Amino acid sequence: MGLTITEKIIKNHLVVGEMNRGTEIGIKIDHTLTQDSTGTMAYLQFEAMGIPRVKTKRSVAYIDHNMLQTGPENMDDHLYIQTVAKKHGIYFSKPGNGICHQVNIERFGVPGETLLGSDSHTPTGGGLGMLAIGAGGLDVAVAMAGGEYYITMPEIIKVELKGNMRLGVTSKDIILEVLKRFTVKGGINRVFEYVGEGVKNLTVPERATITNMGAELGATTSVFPSDEETLKFLKAQKRDEDYVELFADIDAIYDQEIIIDLNNLQPMAACPHSPDDVENIENLVGKKINQVAIGSCTNSSLLDLMKVANILEGNTVSEEVSLVISPGSKQVLNMLAENGSLAKMIDSGARILECGCGPCIGMGQSPNTEGVSLRTFNRNFKGRSGTTDADVYLVSPEVAAISAITGVITNPIGRVDDKIKNMEVPSQFKINDNLIVAPAPEGEEVEVVKGPNIKPFPKTEKLKDSINKNVLIKVEDNITTDHIMPSNAKLLPYRSNIPYLSDYCLTPCDPEFPARAKEQGGGIIVTGHNYGQGSSREHAALAPLYLGIKAVVAKSFARIHKNNLINNGILPLIFKEENDYDTLNVGDTLEINNLLSGVESKEMIIKNTANGKEIRVVLDITDRQKEMILAGGLINHMKEKA
Amino acid sequence: MGLTITEKIIKNHLVVGEMNRGTEIGIKIDHTLTQDSTGTMAYLQFEAMGIPRVKTKRSVAYIDHNMLQTGPENMDDHLYIQTVAKKHGIYFSKPGNGICHQVNIERFGVPGETLLGSDSHTPTGGGLGMLAIGAGGLDVAVAMAGGEYYITMPEIIKVELKGNMRLGVTSKDIILEVLKRFTVKGGINRVFEYVGEGVKNLTVPERATITNMGAELGATTSVFPSDEETLKFLKAQKRDEDYVELFADIDAIYDQEIIIDLNNLQPMAACPHSPDDVENIENLVGKKINQVAIGSCTNSSLLDLMKVANILEGNTVSEEVSLVISPGSKQVLNMLAENGSLAKMIDSGARILECGCGPCIGMGQSPNTEGVSLRTFNRNFKGRSGTTDADVYLVSPEVAAISAITGVITNPIGRVDDKIKNMEVPSQFKINDNLIVAPAPEGEEVEVVKGPNIKPFPKTEKLKDSINKNVLIKVEDNITTDHIMPSNAKLLPYRSNIPYLSDYCLTPCDPEFPARAKEQGGGIIVTGHNYGQGSSREHAALAPLYLGIKAVVAKSFARIHKNNLINNGILPLIFKEENDYDTLNVGDTLEINNLLSGVESKEMIIKNTANGKEIRVVLDITDRQKEMILAGGLINHMKEKA
Repeated sequence: MGLTITEKIIKNHLVVGEMNRGTEIGIKIDHTLTQDSTGTMAYLQFEAMGIPRVKTKRSVAYIDHNMLQTGPENMDDHLYIQTVAKKHGIYFSKPGNGICHQVNIERFGVPGETLLGSDSHTPTGGGLGMLAIGAGGLDVAVAMAGGEYYITMPEIIKVELKGNMRLGVTSKDIILEVLKRFTVKGGINRVFEYVGEGVKNLTVPERATITNMGAELGATTSVFPSDEETLKFLKAQKRDEDYVELFADIDAIYDQEIIIDLNNLQPMAACPHSPDDVENIENLVGKKINQVAIGSCTNSSLLDLMKVANILEGNTVSEEVSLVISPGSKQVLNMLAENGSLAKMIDSGARILECGCGPCIGMGQSPNTEGVSLRTFNRNFKGRSGTTDADVYLVSPEVAAISAITGVITNPIGRVDDKIKNMEVPSQFKINDNLIVAPAPEGEEVEVVKGPNIKPFPKTEKLKDSINKNVLIKVEDNITTDHIMPSNAKLLPYRSNIPYLSDYCLTPCDPEFPARAKEQGGGIIVTGHNYGQGSSREHAALAPLYLGIKAVVAKSFARIHKNNLINNGILPLIFKEENDYDTLNVGDTLEINNLLSGVESKEMIIKNTANGKEIRVVLDITDRQKEMILAGGLINHMKEKA
Repeated sequence: MGLTITEKIIKNHLVVGEMNRGTEIGIKIDHTLTQDSTGTMAYLQFEAMGIPRVKTKRSVAYIDHNMLQTGPENMDDHLYIQTVAKKHGIYFSKPGNGICHQVNIERFGVPGETLLGSDSHTPTGGGLGMLAIGAGGLDVAVAMAGGEYYITMPEIIKVELKGNMRLGVTSKDIILEVLKRFTVKGGINRVFEYVGEGVKNLTVPERATITNMGAELGATTSVFPSDEETLKFLKAQKRDEDYVELFADIDAIYDQEIIIDLNNLQPMAACPHSPDDVENIENLVGKKINQVAIGSCTNSSLLDLMKVANILEGNTVSEEVSLVISPGSKQVLNMLAENGSLAKMIDSGARILECGCGPCIGMGQSPNTEGVSLRTFNRNFKGRSGTTDADVYLVSPEVAAISAITGVITNPIGRVDDKIKNMEVPSQFKINDNLIVAPAPEGEEVEVVKGPNIKPFPKTEKLKDSINKNVLIKVEDNITTDHIMPSNAKLLPYRSNIPYLSDYCLTPCDPEFPARAKEQGGGIIVTGHNYGQGSSREHAALAPLYLGIKAVVAKSFARIHKNNLINNGILPLIFKEENDYDTLNVGDTLEINNLLSGVESKEMIIKNTANGKEIRVVLDITDRQKEMILAGGLINHMKEKA
């Protein structure tokens, strides 16, 4: 039986389990990447493991999130990451070198290998034929320490691209079409493999736009073949030695197949406030806009921005629009500066931002109140831009550029052909890696610099046999990680300071929660369904850990957050009878005895001393996770094994 | 008797008073400029005056301070300023067009005319032969409404420049030498006029570096002749029609004369934490640095940055240094992009920031904790960078660039000659004013857009005949405007929201002050000597006004803050007997009766009802200010006159 690309890569990296759909497997990780908003914690965790040197083929630490530096915290974090990287064998990409995913494609990614990154858009690497997966920082720390990464063996979806796109239709529209068909929940435990004649005409950066935004499907990852186009790109990066050919077998079996006819594809937009709320641009034409933002890990490649420059050339940005452009990497910016594209942009009235995530993560360039912003990014969640009531539309660079000139949403078809036809990725990129710092050959002597904002990682302890704690808060269904640990331009600089962040833990639900938790020496959270949905940030487990939370009793959990709780030794307990939720109140003291045997049997009894009632709860965990819970979290578990 | 340049310009603009040193004069203002952190309030005040169209020759509203946009407040302010400008006859310089002072020199400044700007570095215009003065926003609003501006007729200091500077010595070193000789207090009520052979070899942007940083002397302003070099610059900007020749008469009389021998000048630095703590670079050589920041209104001209680019060319920024460069204007950035300089910078590893004030005002790029930052800026006050314990050194672009490469403070003499010799300002600048929006020919129809963060300007009322209020706070000597109204990256976005800002009023002295003031419906501030020293920000009067402060009773006041209090109808009362300070306590109820006649006689009695004691206080104000106090502030006074 033939294999898909996904299966071929997994087969080569399988350490635990078998490739049966829906079962847990452990795979070896070749490459890791971190960015700075998750990286500080990942490296604190790596340090706690006591391993002197990373065991991956290549680990890279990027700075791309916290680059505004409105206080000492950001640069302190940068210096910590720079020094800890140098000590432990990790390459360090200095601020200014670019967005992790763009630089990874350019300088580090290798077809057929595995990449684990502490950023949800790590699947970008799939554009180069990698199996590239986003995960929590602790998972990345474990991978750096040589540990395998656990996933559910995914279903594999074949996306066949047929025909060719017209000028003005782009790879952004391909992924918008996929999002339209599958929705933001359609990718869970699935990998999307792109195949067919249409793939051949997509450059690696165009493929990366698709795999990047595949994250919005909730997919495990997305992947393209490694073919002649891949080789051409690697050659242009002077990395042809990294090339391997990689195709699905002719008789590979997929779980589902869809076909996208590129000939008939239209320019599209994801409308507020979801990446899957997709409309044809034609239906939005004429809508007045206040801001256009071009860049992000989705659409900031050289070719993307050269097209933007050509569309802007000789035109002026509308008087009523602010156009900001953030190139994806130093390589891109440098080449734009050398080939005249940057001057064209500036001349037209564009504002040039640093190479970084910037406005895509709400770090700057928030639109005006009730403003309309056209962005080439991957997410348009309500409030992500920093302006709660702004309307953000996600579009291709072509739509963004032409609309910036007209001041209204504009269909590029027929309007930009002369400007963008026959444009190609250059046969030779400018190679100058002088913003990448290599690790020290001997790390022992490197002193790790920790500024005062970098606080120790909160420690866990071996599970005790009983808990006797109060219910500290009772919340409803669908509590997100944004409720548990808010993230915005004001709090992002504190990602390495759990004590500070914990003062904001669950405050959108109850501003008094952190104070109460501290006063009562920790306690228990009671909640409804789908607790912890949203981003993968493990700070949503670390802050509760710091506040002494021993257990979360829920009707159900979101998958990644449940893993984060387990990794940090917090019990994710599920009501056996949902109605028991109604019997628990804030202030009730709960007793759990015989906890160790309860974890073994994955079932236990909570006694509510307020009314004497006994409640049955279960643990929905694998045997591997059971060991972690008993050890008091993943780091302790690793230490025990070592 | 011959006249100085200053006297010639004042004579042409004198409306009130006579040119006798030390007396108050009123001068007509030809040009105004605002930036966005002071501009929002200035335009709210202008609107309150009810005048449909500005009466100046040219008024320009710039956006250069609040460009990070980490929330909707900044862009809301931009849109307010853009629309209010369009309505009332003011040119609007969009965000991205550059720093007000740099753009003013390039596109608007006219030799021999007067410029009033709501930014303390407005004297930059003196490099072009303008009489350019910084003032509070309300003063600028009055000037836009056609009112004269009042200053003390200044002493005039002749600074004669002899000889020529070696390569590696710059105009930055000239102003550092002046600061070394006069200190930061040495310029009060003085104008510095630059003359002599050495002037001829200075380009207009080099002159502007000197007049810009002349603000650090506390001077009224600084001014250069308008000569062939000025004409050359204006021609290169296609503005030769704005040229007038302007020299001091041969027999002009100065109050003081100094000579600077350029042949012997050394590269220098202003050391932490004052612009007058000047050392020769040679004495600092080898000091390890963490950050280099090039730009700001002092040193961000085309020639400055082309020299930087040439020094960086082919080199790499030190692994341990973060180098950021913010060009002064779109014109500069565009030309750097076109002539290859920008590519050289990027290639070396520099981070390119937007054209704006940026790190100079603490809006981003704060150094690491206890970090050392080399900056080409004009101020290195403790904490201004956003990092309280960072050490900031002020240096020339040449020192900054060579040090960024070596990673330690480095003397450029002999090291950069080949890179920077024979460089000249181009004979033709690139002219594209497409980021400048002209006012509407008929303003009536323009709708002014006010976002929710833009709150009405707090209104004052005619002075009543008695006050009966409590002492709300008692503070010591030398309270600065930073104590009264803190300014940092978190609060700067709220400069158009006095209600929000007022919650931070005087909180560095007493966190409970704003709540107490609100609870008690306003009251009185008691303070020691030199109350209100520091910046000119009128928010330090507006926030107390909003909180209901009726009077400040002090041992003495800083000059500008006293004016701001008067402009806003708050009584600046001075103890006749300093010891009476000791008899007043927080919570005492103070009674002032017969206030109207007291203001007339500039003397009154405060009765402390807590102990029955009577205290004599005086008003040290001009008759013009007396009228303002009686009217309830400047705006009411203007309305009464109209």
